[in-house]
Amino acid sequence: MATATAGRPTPERIFNTLNAYQQTAALKTAIELDVFTAIAAGANTAAALAAKTGAAEKGVRILCDYLTIQGFLAKEQGRYALTQESALFLDRKSPACLASMTGFLGGQEARSNFDLLTEAVRKGGSVSRGGDNTKPNDEFWVAFARSMAPLTVPSAEFIAGLLRADEGKPTKVLDIAAGHGMYGISIARKNPKAEIAALDWPNVLSVAQENARKFGVADRFSVRAGSAFEVDMGSGYDYVLLTNIFHHFDMPTCEKLMRRVHTALKPGGKAITLEFVPNEDRVTPPTAAAFSLIMLANTDAGDAYTFVEYEKIFRNAGFAKSTLHPVPEMPQQVIVSEKSA
Amino acid sequence: MATATAGRPTPERIFNTLNAYQQTAALKTAIELDVFTAIAAGANTAAALAAKTGAAEKGVRILCDYLTIQGFLAKEQGRYALTQESALFLDRKSPACLASMTGFLGGQEARSNFDLLTEAVRKGGSVSRGGDNTKPNDEFWVAFARSMAPLTVPSAEFIAGLLRADEGKPTKVLDIAAGHGMYGISIARKNPKAEIAALDWPNVLSVAQENARKFGVADRFSVRAGSAFEVDMGSGYDYVLLTNIFHHFDMPTCEKLMRRVHTALKPGGKAITLEFVPNEDRVTPPTAAAFSLIMLANTDAGDAYTFVEYEKIFRNAGFAKSTLHPVPEMPQQVIVSEKSA
Repeated sequence: MATATAGRPTPERIFNTLNAYQQTAALKTAIELDVFTAIAAGANTAAALAAKTGAAEKGVRILCDYLTIQGFLAKEQGRYALTQESALFLDRKSPACLASMTGFLGGQEARSNFDLLTEAVRKGGSVSRGGDNTKPNDEFWVAFARSMAPLTVPSAEFIAGLLRADEGKPTKVLDIAAGHGMYGISIARKNPKAEIAALDWPNVLSVAQENARKFGVADRFSVRAGSAFEVDMGSGYDYVLLTNIFHHFDMPTCEKLMRRVHTALKPGGKAITLEFVPNEDRVTPPTAAAFSLIMLANTDAGDAYTFVEYEKIFRNAGFAKSTLHPVPEMPQQVIVSEKSA
Repeated sequence: MATATAGRPTPERIFNTLNAYQQTAALKTAIELDVFTAIAAGANTAAALAAKTGAAEKGVRILCDYLTIQGFLAKEQGRYALTQESALFLDRKSPACLASMTGFLGGQEARSNFDLLTEAVRKGGSVSRGGDNTKPNDEFWVAFARSMAPLTVPSAEFIAGLLRADEGKPTKVLDIAAGHGMYGISIARKNPKAEIAALDWPNVLSVAQENARKFGVADRFSVRAGSAFEVDMGSGYDYVLLTNIFHHFDMPTCEKLMRRVHTALKPGGKAITLEFVPNEDRVTPPTAAAFSLIMLANTDAGDAYTFVEYEKIFRNAGFAKSTLHPVPEMPQQVIVSEKSA
């Protein structure tokens, strides 16, 4: 909706940014009413959608027009159609559907913390309770685990490929802050000789165990319940997965965790970090760089660290060299750090 | 932040839309901490801005990086600079500063109604109390009047120009739902022979009267307190201004109001409507078309009507012909409807 003309700027973009919360609300509402699935099933006018969803025709018409303006639908002669993007990610019949994400992204907890953003900027960290993520906060992370699993598919597949899981060698994997467990499970599905240990809070691990059963790898899936900073991690791992965990902490805490990982790996084993890694300018690429603000609002001391910062943290923890691998089609990157043989 | 690649779409735009409320929060926070004014005054590093605003350096750095990603700042070697847009509209030293808008746009009341958007779509109108805007709701509209006055400057100037206020002919103007009063006041400032009557709820009119005094036109500024549907409007007006009022109501209610306006005008007088007027497709231009959703969430029966709909409403109310005039650099348009001489 940018409208800066060749000459003088207009206030339209500021106006639209102050209204940007409406984009979140509209997409959440459309997913709640399952409008995308209904359109995919052929209900493509406001009247047909109203009949299908039980909503008012006027309400549906205005919502679908707004989704068209935002690029999530197309409209032609009063008929709505899915875009490539909404057909793939927002129709519940699509295997890649991400609709469950709305349980977490754009949810009440996240928005409440952003209501206090001014205070968080003043303080340099979250002003909400539980911001340090080092105490069990089961309910929150269970919701996260259930909501976010579909979003992990591309990066979980990428990591399994990077580790050549399909070569089928005996492999011991520790998945730290496993959540839904899908990173480890993806490796176990591709490699029948992989054994996965998942570490997380107890209630969260039950979601991971559900998924392990669902994907038929439960016999090679064990759990270690507790804090990543305290629980016995075991040892002799080929790989330790650290997906979306470091961004919650300050650098000394990240280093402390990575030392424990170094100890748990076998010689020649690798730590696999999945993270939002902004460039050194910290303002590109946009989604990775913007992730900093999410950590500012939601954590005591978290941040989106640059690769130079990660290299330093990991070197201090005993890893001489780290390499960076962009995940195709995703805003995140993988850092591979090898323990000396 | 769109990232659809040539091939398969990615989920990044959906992710960013579910996080779009963060854009609103970040801009509100930056305005609250007066970051733009501080940068304009030379505090252009995170450290200097922290010192100037009393916020944490880390908090300011992350906030300013985010504002850079969103295009409201530029960043070069760790130094932040205003863009043309933020210099004009967000530095409190700029005469065109719109910072006060945050008191209303993106405020708690508006966001609460969008928290109930799903229910509003189901119902076809707001589920909050006071959605019909026909009862006094002084506190809300006083906040609106104080917040939004700066945003009206371009359209108020445009209307004053359209009515050739600078020709200085004796002119009687009625400003319905006057709010801050700036539409009428702009005419009175340009035309020393213009007399303005402002109609609104009593407490709102006191904001308009403050502004009339501030701009030196109080001696030609009278008020009519009450509902636009009930209060005696007076008669013999050259112009009746209807700025941002019709979108709150259903079409029969708009027609009822316009009949009263027709009666209040002298023969040959003109009704001047300022509105968000989407094209017939209802999805372009974006800001005018998206305004529908704001009315769905906040009003019982309001909408953004097309020009064809307004022509019909106004014809039914006695105006044979209406013409449409885009306001330069603004998302709104002016409709001029003349009463037969």
